[in-house]
Amino acid sequence: VSTSYRLDDLARRVGGEVRGDASLQVQGLATLEQAGKGDLSFLTHRGYRRQAETTQAGAVLVGPDVELPGRDLLVCAEPYAALARLLELFHPPEKPAPGVSPDARVAADVKLGRDVHVGPFAVVEEGSELGDRAVVGAACVVGSGCRVGEASELRPHGVLYPGTRIGARCLIHAGVVLGGDGFGFATSAGSHLKVLQVGRVVIEDDVEVGANSAVDRAMLGETRIGQGSKIDDLVMIAHGVQLGAGALLAAQSGVAGSSRLGAGVRLAGQAGVAGHLRVADHVTVAAKSAVFGDVDDPGFVAGVPAVDHRQWKRSQASLKRLPELLREVRQLRQRVADLERRLEREG
Amino acid sequence: VSTSYRLDDLARRVGGEVRGDASLQVQGLATLEQAGKGDLSFLTHRGYRRQAETTQAGAVLVGPDVELPGRDLLVCAEPYAALARLLELFHPPEKPAPGVSPDARVAADVKLGRDVHVGPFAVVEEGSELGDRAVVGAACVVGSGCRVGEASELRPHGVLYPGTRIGARCLIHAGVVLGGDGFGFATSAGSHLKVLQVGRVVIEDDVEVGANSAVDRAMLGETRIGQGSKIDDLVMIAHGVQLGAGALLAAQSGVAGSSRLGAGVRLAGQAGVAGHLRVADHVTVAAKSAVFGDVDDPGFVAGVPAVDHRQWKRSQASLKRLPELLREVRQLRQRVADLERRLEREG
Amino acid sequence: VSTSYRLDDLARRVGGEVRGDASLQVQGLATLEQAGKGDLSFLTHRGYRRQAETTQAGAVLVGPDVELPGRDLLVCAEPYAALARLLELFHPPEKPAPGVSPDARVAADVKLGRDVHVGPFAVVEEGSELGDRAVVGAACVVGSGCRVGEASELRPHGVLYPGTRIGARCLIHAGVVLGGDGFGFATSAGSHLKVLQVGRVVIEDDVEVGANSAVDRAMLGETRIGQGSKIDDLVMIAHGVQLGAGALLAAQSGVAGSSRLGAGVRLAGQAGVAGHLRVADHVTVAAKSAVFGDVDDPGFVAGVPAVDHRQWKRSQASLKRLPELLREVRQLRQRVADLERRLEREG
Repeated sequence: VSTSYRLDDLARRVGGEVRGDASLQVQGLATLEQAGKGDLSFLTHRGYRRQAETTQAGAVLVGPDVELPGRDLLVCAEPYAALARLLELFHPPEKPAPGVSPDARVAADVKLGRDVHVGPFAVVEEGSELGDRAVVGAACVVGSGCRVGEASELRPHGVLYPGTRIGARCLIHAGVVLGGDGFGFATSAGSHLKVLQVGRVVIEDDVEVGANSAVDRAMLGETRIGQGSKIDDLVMIAHGVQLGAGALLAAQSGVAGSSRLGAGVRLAGQAGVAGHLRVADHVTVAAKSAVFGDVDDPGFVAGVPAVDHRQWKRSQASLKRLPELLREVRQLRQRVADLERRLEREG
Repeated sequence: VSTSYRLDDLARRVGGEVRGDASLQVQGLATLEQAGKGDLSFLTHRGYRRQAETTQAGAVLVGPDVELPGRDLLVCAEPYAALARLLELFHPPEKPAPGVSPDARVAADVKLGRDVHVGPFAVVEEGSELGDRAVVGAACVVGSGCRVGEASELRPHGVLYPGTRIGARCLIHAGVVLGGDGFGFATSAGSHLKVLQVGRVVIEDDVEVGANSAVDRAMLGETRIGQGSKIDDLVMIAHGVQLGAGALLAAQSGVAGSSRLGAGVRLAGQAGVAGHLRVADHVTVAAKSAVFGDVDDPGFVAGVPAVDHRQWKRSQASLKRLPELLREVRQLRQRVADLERRLEREG
Repeated sequence: VSTSYRLDDLARRVGGEVRGDASLQVQGLATLEQAGKGDLSFLTHRGYRRQAETTQAGAVLVGPDVELPGRDLLVCAEPYAALARLLELFHPPEKPAPGVSPDARVAADVKLGRDVHVGPFAVVEEGSELGDRAVVGAACVVGSGCRVGEASELRPHGVLYPGTRIGARCLIHAGVVLGGDGFGFATSAGSHLKVLQVGRVVIEDDVEVGANSAVDRAMLGETRIGQGSKIDDLVMIAHGVQLGAGALLAAQSGVAGSSRLGAGVRLAGQAGVAGHLRVADHVTVAAKSAVFGDVDDPGFVAGVPAVDHRQWKRSQASLKRLPELLREVRQLRQRVADLERRLEREG
């Protein structure tokens, strides 16, 4: 049965208002390009303005300052957040049914909460705890002494090294490795002596970690991912890192050992932070940039090494003019030499 | 039984010609360094010219414009393509034997084509389809409603999230995750609300994806990898990306959300493309470079942000001369001040 | 039972000396921040000097040139190496018990050494060999014809493609893929013909490979990781690479095809080396840098492309002054024009 909603009903649910036909029936959500008459689409990124003008969508979800003449609009103060709520309405997420697969191997002493799901070929080792409604996907390996909090989900192929702790409502995607050894070696006479990594990884509540990312255990103590942080695919968090609450780490970014990133820090794609640094709350690091020193104040940094974004932009702009500058200086040198010769002659 | 071929027989098979002893018996293929008398080696990269002069190989496969006096040569217009064919001749690939392992868990309603192989501890969930001669390696997890096309192979430990579609003759290497959630969060009052990702991943025919790479599902609609594209290891393709046919993405490169890359686009190692961009057909992005804006024309771009490769080279060359330029300008300033003082005195 | 040691006993075990109370009882090791009275902490990175002054630790392990007035010190010539030994003393590593899980699938002809451990849902294919005390973790897949040397450990979810060879005492972390296909395609008339990769991966003794890293097999011959090399998480080593002994590759670094890196080479985080290059022994590549040409001498290189580190620093410093330089040259041009006009008038 496909459900449909009146546009003003949707507006009410997301705290928005209709500009246009309030009685319009919405059958689904779709991108501007793919939407048909029965769909509500959305303009949450200004780059798609032109598509919004030509979309076949029945209605468009927009922010308060957007005009789209002739279109039925659902206007919200925060259209992207509204879209998030509408997605949940039209696509209510399904959780795997509770139960431990007969093909899973769960140690006898594991504490299982209510309505836990453990998939086929999953392994949960001794001394671990799975909270109520926790999900351990197919072929996951949960080492000894781990804790997975209430309603947290491990998608297939997650690996938790022994002692890893995951809070409530986390989502750990396929192939993620939590608690692998930090990269610690004491080089003595040219050979690298392994420094045992006996700390752990702690993932606080409401964290998401993307596919194939890795968070290493601390040498001693903890590597800690703060509450509500979101980590994309193929991200690497080294041993002893402390990530504040609400951090956002985009794909292929990385943080080296023992660095401390404040609350709300954002690393764009392929950005990096070197080791043993402190990065203040609400610092954003541009894509492909690398932080090589402490960042003391909130702001936007870019470059390698990362500097204030405006300074980086100025440097980049100047860099473009550099070949021209070289020519100019060569000419100036010539002109000055001419002047000097002339004065010499005249003197 | 080791097979051997006459050099002229090999030439005939790859559409080349022999320069030298046509009757030479070739027992195998080997690198210039490791080849012995019975081996055919190859010079497909000019960096190895010196090795080609000193190799012990019985014969060398070369392009049309290469001279190697005193050596028996197999000359081909496209020597690397010829090498590809010879490798298949000397090392015919073996496919795993058809059959579903008794240790696999395949849902009752899964449609299995002819001669399908499903390895031990693999999971194939309800509603999925595996085409004729498809291979699902050990410990793979194929979620519900997936399609794996004819003769496509998933190497061990692949994970397909529900709804993923893979065309024919694809090769998906170990540890690849297809269809994980895109990185979408609506930040409202400092906390990050998950934006459900209800689209899918579509991999067209003849695509290869390297070890531990990740392709995320679209929020709505599709993330699509074009026919014949080849993706290396540890590459990240974000939600909603559209990759044209015949793209080549080298290791550790990444493409951010919703970007559209044309046919034949090449990203060299560790390159990146930011989100919501359009990159024209046949654009090549240099290693370690990052595309931060639309690229409208075919060509070779480099740098962060990426610009035309020649411009990048000029900037880099100028950059080297910058310390010297600073000195020079300091001297000019001095000389101009001297001139001014002198004229002042004289005036 | 928690063990405790006298400080002078610990000093004797690591070849150090006590400065302060030799009879102090040490119950454990802890970071400066978390240590209590019964703990020995350590100052192995000068960035933590202030923490060392205020730590609650009972004693601090330091290098020979460190003064911490009023504190009991354990002084060692190589404090980090001493810490490595103390970690083994306080946290003796546990190996999984010998035995093959009834849930593993080990081919009949696999040669098993003494005291081998094979975990649940692991697969070991025909013709492979596992040396004495080798460990194959849960859900690992060891392809046909592989060798895993004495006392080497594969953590859960490792994948060894057929023919991979691992020496003795190696540690391969979760999610690592060894021996996947190199990225080789011969492009002919716009389509990419697969070049079969029929070589292998050889990992010499005492190598560690971090979570989710990938080492590709050679097209022909070997990809080889030298003895005692240590590779961090999410690192990519392409086909045909030769890595010397004792290399250190930090997280998210990568080496492109056929490059040869000497002994003791270090790549910092997110660094890269392009293909077909030679990098001399004991070269260190700075974080986020990329080597695009041969490096003939030991040293420290940085930048994209990487140059000598001092040159890179000078360029970076100059770059910062570039906007100011542009202004200065504009002024100089004006002053020179003024001088020229003046002389013109006066001439």
